[in-house]
Amino acid sequence: ENGGEEAGEKSENVLCGFKTSHVLGASDREKTIFIHGKLADQEAVVILEKTPIREDTLTELFSGSTLKLEMRNDIYSTYRLQAPPFLNEIKTTVVCPATEKHVKKYKHQESFLVEETDEDYRSITLPYIEMQRFSLQWIHNILEKKAEAERIVYEDPDPDVGFILLPDFKWDQKQVDDLYLIAIVHQRDIRSLRDLTSEHLPLLKNIFQKGQEAILERYNLPASKLRVYLHYQPSYYHLHVHFTKLDYEAPGCRVERAHLLADVIQNLQSDPKYYKSRTLYFPLRADDGLLSKFKEAGKL
Amino acid sequence: ENGGEEAGEKSENVLCGFKTSHVLGASDREKTIFIHGKLADQEAVVILEKTPIREDTLTELFSGSTLKLEMRNDIYSTYRLQAPPFLNEIKTTVVCPATEKHVKKYKHQESFLVEETDEDYRSITLPYIEMQRFSLQWIHNILEKKAEAERIVYEDPDPDVGFILLPDFKWDQKQVDDLYLIAIVHQRDIRSLRDLTSEHLPLLKNIFQKGQEAILERYNLPASKLRVYLHYQPSYYHLHVHFTKLDYEAPGCRVERAHLLADVIQNLQSDPKYYKSRTLYFPLRADDGLLSKFKEAGKL
Repeated sequence: ENGGEEAGEKSENVLCGFKTSHVLGASDREKTIFIHGKLADQEAVVILEKTPIREDTLTELFSGSTLKLEMRNDIYSTYRLQAPPFLNEIKTTVVCPATEKHVKKYKHQESFLVEETDEDYRSITLPYIEMQRFSLQWIHNILEKKAEAERIVYEDPDPDVGFILLPDFKWDQKQVDDLYLIAIVHQRDIRSLRDLTSEHLPLLKNIFQKGQEAILERYNLPASKLRVYLHYQPSYYHLHVHFTKLDYEAPGCRVERAHLLADVIQNLQSDPKYYKSRTLYFPLRADDGLLSKFKEAGKL
Repeated sequence: ENGGEEAGEKSENVLCGFKTSHVLGASDREKTIFIHGKLADQEAVVILEKTPIREDTLTELFSGSTLKLEMRNDIYSTYRLQAPPFLNEIKTTVVCPATEKHVKKYKHQESFLVEETDEDYRSITLPYIEMQRFSLQWIHNILEKKAEAERIVYEDPDPDVGFILLPDFKWDQKQVDDLYLIAIVHQRDIRSLRDLTSEHLPLLKNIFQKGQEAILERYNLPASKLRVYLHYQPSYYHLHVHFTKLDYEAPGCRVERAHLLADVIQNLQSDPKYYKSRTLYFPLRADDGLLSKFKEAGKL
């Protein structure tokens, strides 16, 4: 692969016609930006993220780049380095047509910690999920091999304990340092952590064991280098498990949202209804419809 | 020392002659890399960091770049975007000649997830803690007002359920955005989460309630804006609780190390020996003495 400029090599540049409406959010630390705009008269969200710097390209990067001196002081000097484009790509995600929900999802908002009792779940959260949820068509496409079939890292096709393991959209798969895979279960009626009981232990143990084995085989990373967890609330209500590299500070791995799968298994082993009966805590962004429901109920 | 190919436009490309010895560390999330090597026979450290994406360059970026399609599924598609080099620079810092200290400073230690059963705690961790006996003098100084007395935000002097709340060293107190306080208990015989039983519920509930009240009063932040948690393993073995702002990605708030105080209280309410009997998971850095003990015991 190279960064040739001949038209033959390019995809059509769909972003040429992108009209920015406004920046939804950005992280200078992570070198990401979330943009809302229009693509051929359709609402679109475009996400740009600079790619990690790869060790195996350093020699080529140093020899093939242009350096502009900015500052020199004693033993310290700083430069702006201009690299050949193919060595310095920007990961670009386009959601088009994007719904109001997608726009909200990427809009930076402050968060509030919500306390959800089992009763709150039944009277506030569950009715909200049932009414509001995102289409799960893209999950069904994956499970039915209608999309992303070539991205599958591992599959256990069993309808009860089986799952498909594949890279998360956020991971460009160029290096294992920010490894991020998702295990999506074949069962279609488990919404989230809240639905889990001891009946699901065979499923959860199967995902834990076979997911780790598949990652060891494909990426040579042992279990001690992995963080395996569920989100609550999840971003979509079809049960899935996150596998990220332990050293990678993945988004959504903070204690207020993530639940280690090993802990989930252990909790269900000692109390079959642990997640049905517990008060659970999770962050919700200011613009989340579910937060409004908790506020309306006088819970915040 | 001019490694440039068209010497006219460029600064001298000093990095052309850089010989990489090894990568000291890298953050895929922050798009940084720290490299140790040689520059004209002198020790050098080179730090590369991709630059944040600037809103004011977006139009030019979209029109002037090449897009390579990676994946398309339903309304989602991902691309690799190859941008003009001047719109996508890499901040480069060179330390040369670099000393041993510079090299150490940038060296990253990888972490390993350790699985600690209750038996492992008694046979491996506890003897290690007892042997190491890190001095807790600085904690005792705080509790006895021999040091940092002027920094105290709140104190409940009760010997059983009391504690002192004060800002963590990492927080400069200039803004609440990265609020970080520590509650240090007056009881001196509770080493960590592992020692907690239902007997400690009055202490834990007292810290939770009065800590939140004190923060509301002093900083005007309600409980829903706070992340209140313990570390396991902690960095010192005198029980303490962390209070950080929910939106602040504090170091040590990831799921593999942090335990929400609300969860700890709930777990002890339903099982008085929860933390005495559980398998606990935590990360240890490669150079941690405790990790060697787990390795020697064949546990990793």
